[in-house]
Amino acid sequence: MITVDWKPNRFSPVPIQKQIEQFIKEKIVNGEWTIGTKLPSQRALAQAFDVNRSTVVAALDELTAAGLLAGNTGGGTRVINTTWSLLASVSPTNWNANVELGIHPPNLPTIQEINHAEFRSGIIRLGTGELSPSLLPASEQMQQLFARQAARPIPLGYQEAKGDSFLREQIVQRLKKEGIATSPDSVLIVSGALQALQLIAIGLLKKGSTVLLENPSYLHSLHVFQSAGMKLQGVPMDPDGLQAELLPAYQKQFKGAILYSIPTFHNPTGNVMPAKRREELLRVCDEQSLPIIEDDVYRDLWLDERPPCPIKAGDKNGNVLYLGSMSKSVSPGLRIGWLVGPQPVIERLADIKMQIDYGASSLSQWAAGEWIASGAYDQRLAVIREQLRVRRACMLNALERNCRDLASWDYPTGGFYVWLRMHEAIPMKTLFDRALSAGILLNPGHLYDRQEFGALRLSYAYASLEELQQGIAALADIIRSLGATGRT
Amino acid sequence: MITVDWKPNRFSPVPIQKQIEQFIKEKIVNGEWTIGTKLPSQRALAQAFDVNRSTVVAALDELTAAGLLAGNTGGGTRVINTTWSLLASVSPTNWNANVELGIHPPNLPTIQEINHAEFRSGIIRLGTGELSPSLLPASEQMQQLFARQAARPIPLGYQEAKGDSFLREQIVQRLKKEGIATSPDSVLIVSGALQALQLIAIGLLKKGSTVLLENPSYLHSLHVFQSAGMKLQGVPMDPDGLQAELLPAYQKQFKGAILYSIPTFHNPTGNVMPAKRREELLRVCDEQSLPIIEDDVYRDLWLDERPPCPIKAGDKNGNVLYLGSMSKSVSPGLRIGWLVGPQPVIERLADIKMQIDYGASSLSQWAAGEWIASGAYDQRLAVIREQLRVRRACMLNALERNCRDLASWDYPTGGFYVWLRMHEAIPMKTLFDRALSAGILLNPGHLYDRQEFGALRLSYAYASLEELQQGIAALADIIRSLGATGRT
Repeated sequence: MITVDWKPNRFSPVPIQKQIEQFIKEKIVNGEWTIGTKLPSQRALAQAFDVNRSTVVAALDELTAAGLLAGNTGGGTRVINTTWSLLASVSPTNWNANVELGIHPPNLPTIQEINHAEFRSGIIRLGTGELSPSLLPASEQMQQLFARQAARPIPLGYQEAKGDSFLREQIVQRLKKEGIATSPDSVLIVSGALQALQLIAIGLLKKGSTVLLENPSYLHSLHVFQSAGMKLQGVPMDPDGLQAELLPAYQKQFKGAILYSIPTFHNPTGNVMPAKRREELLRVCDEQSLPIIEDDVYRDLWLDERPPCPIKAGDKNGNVLYLGSMSKSVSPGLRIGWLVGPQPVIERLADIKMQIDYGASSLSQWAAGEWIASGAYDQRLAVIREQLRVRRACMLNALERNCRDLASWDYPTGGFYVWLRMHEAIPMKTLFDRALSAGILLNPGHLYDRQEFGALRLSYAYASLEELQQGIAALADIIRSLGATGRT
Repeated sequence: MITVDWKPNRFSPVPIQKQIEQFIKEKIVNGEWTIGTKLPSQRALAQAFDVNRSTVVAALDELTAAGLLAGNTGGGTRVINTTWSLLASVSPTNWNANVELGIHPPNLPTIQEINHAEFRSGIIRLGTGELSPSLLPASEQMQQLFARQAARPIPLGYQEAKGDSFLREQIVQRLKKEGIATSPDSVLIVSGALQALQLIAIGLLKKGSTVLLENPSYLHSLHVFQSAGMKLQGVPMDPDGLQAELLPAYQKQFKGAILYSIPTFHNPTGNVMPAKRREELLRVCDEQSLPIIEDDVYRDLWLDERPPCPIKAGDKNGNVLYLGSMSKSVSPGLRIGWLVGPQPVIERLADIKMQIDYGASSLSQWAAGEWIASGAYDQRLAVIREQLRVRRACMLNALERNCRDLASWDYPTGGFYVWLRMHEAIPMKTLFDRALSAGILLNPGHLYDRQEFGALRLSYAYASLEELQQGIAALADIIRSLGATGRT
């Protein structure tokens, strides 16, 4: 479905209806709306243009009469001719058939809805897993970084396949403090941790492979492995995280090629795997020859005390591929993450990265390196932690006041998330839609576990304090309206 | 094959051989070199460490005696145990089996060799298709861009799926001057034009589809379509470019799903398709319902006169997907390109891009937008054109002096390339190797046409004037030494 981002000019002498006809005609003439393109509904167009629906109907009727559009009952209005195809007997490409063809599936419908709704003004985003704009560094801070006479010039050419060596060195130094011994040779800079997963999917795994992972898991909301022909298989969690002792049985049945885990401030549950479980998990995986992807992008966002060392810190056999990122801790816009692992793996994936996009932005890599080296990264983290603590308290408070009888949740010691488990299953799609109508955007649990219809991923990272309070109060009302009876 | 980027410290009291043993042990202990990892050859290690081969042999013998390494005749030395696997009976992952498994093929061997050789110091890169570092904007210029009080703050959060709207608006304005009418809704910002191809491959084409393209073509040197399960089928060129009149026959036989063309300053031949052929190509493709990918990344690098309007400018049916980039004209490190096409196609590909890497670096997008809006882009182009003219003259001069009897070539009116066609076929692999030994890196023609063993892609964009002269003289000598007899 196409989106429309234009409004008629009310001060123009040209009648509104004519302006709308002109706008649509131009889209068709320019080849932006090709034959087969389905227009938004009359209601949606009226809303987008900010006019009465009757004006839209009149404009569409005009264009239909001109042979450009055709409407059918139920199916909406489509482009059926271009001004040119009416003149000449050419057969333009039916792109709308093509967009259904590709190998890569579209995002899950709920995710697409979320992606669109995010740009609505005034929407309260109760589940968004990213830092609020108010928590991002000020534009001036970034400008200062560039303004300061940096010893290193900004590289503007292509970079080494593994990425900027200064940045890799900075990352190695930081990882050392977390107990991970590695060298820049074994670090690959990626355009965010998501790209690391993409590279692993297409670079290391056979088609048909199974990826074991926590259930629920953030990874269930993505297509990164599935679109490369792999299957996901969830493994149950307990309060200490993934149940390592179940792995041998799962391996027997599913023959996983790799295990994906977020042991620290797990997405979506907020769980932290204790040191003992980490050791057990590593030992079991070593015994099973099951390599691990350790997604550790939330590590720096501890709020009460430092989390246990990464699993990678205990990895003496190179069984762990370790992922980090600046997206959750400083700026998602930088698109900078890193992948640490055995050197042959890193070199293989670097070669593929070069084939996919010739490496990450050198501007971003430079800025990330300076950001860490100058100490700005750690200063920033201190600020963000302070603010996240306030936000966490605010959300837990609002939950306590409004939802104690409806749901349960755990106290998150870091990261962004509260995993809200309803006492009773409720119709999730209805909850999502009603909340959206009320201006509240939710991340339903089934995004992270297809079988989960009684949970929501809440995040205290994005919405403002006021929105958090207001949003959770309204959410509780909607849940009640759906028939959930309070328990005491 | 892993690379080694470390040298022993000659001023250390620790003997060189011990340092080498220590270095290798550490790689193994950290899990960077896992079991199965193949070490570089003794000769390569000696070169990397800058020591005698006997020292390397002694160190490897020591580690072999310790049970960590094993050598076999011919196969080189491999890691067979980790210090830990010797102690415990765990079975570490054999990553080296995994790196062979993935779906995505490694780069072509010649491309891998080129990628590695590019970082050798002192190498003369006669075929490199990128601007010389001396042609890139100075670091200060980029700093000034950030320092100036820009009206727009630098966005540090995630961006809209289609990319920064200010940058898209700038691109629309520029394209208007080239005769392309579009709107920001129909523009997708990508991390370089290569990523646009990647998105088209996985987002619009069915597995097993055939992509028609010029023969030779840059695209033959990539795996972007093949790794997504598509086939490439070359169509012959004449001096006016792709022979449009052959397309109906090719379509009948190969049923191409899409046509890829570089009509302006073609890579690798440097050809420019005249306006008339462009019209014919568009007409034939319209008739055949064959959509076109127009790769126009060299457009701004005209050296004598402006090239004809893009094919997209004549496209009234939305049959053309148009690619542009800043990589060839300003800075490859920015990783900023754009894709222009029908809105439903753009929205489908934007959705996939969000799934792959959550969009291009917002820092790069911001800088690219400012770069264009401030006029710095056009100023920079003027400087680059001036320098490329000088470089072109220098290369053509050197060719005239050294190669007239060995090969023929056309005068390039823009872009980077001279397509050198040998009068006689010569053993290309030997030429490549001998040139490399002589410190000259070549891009052999078979990278762009598997059947082509008598051509080289030369580029006047990368090597310095001195290197161009020296390199071409040496190249001519090597070609002669391979038995090519001069023709008169």
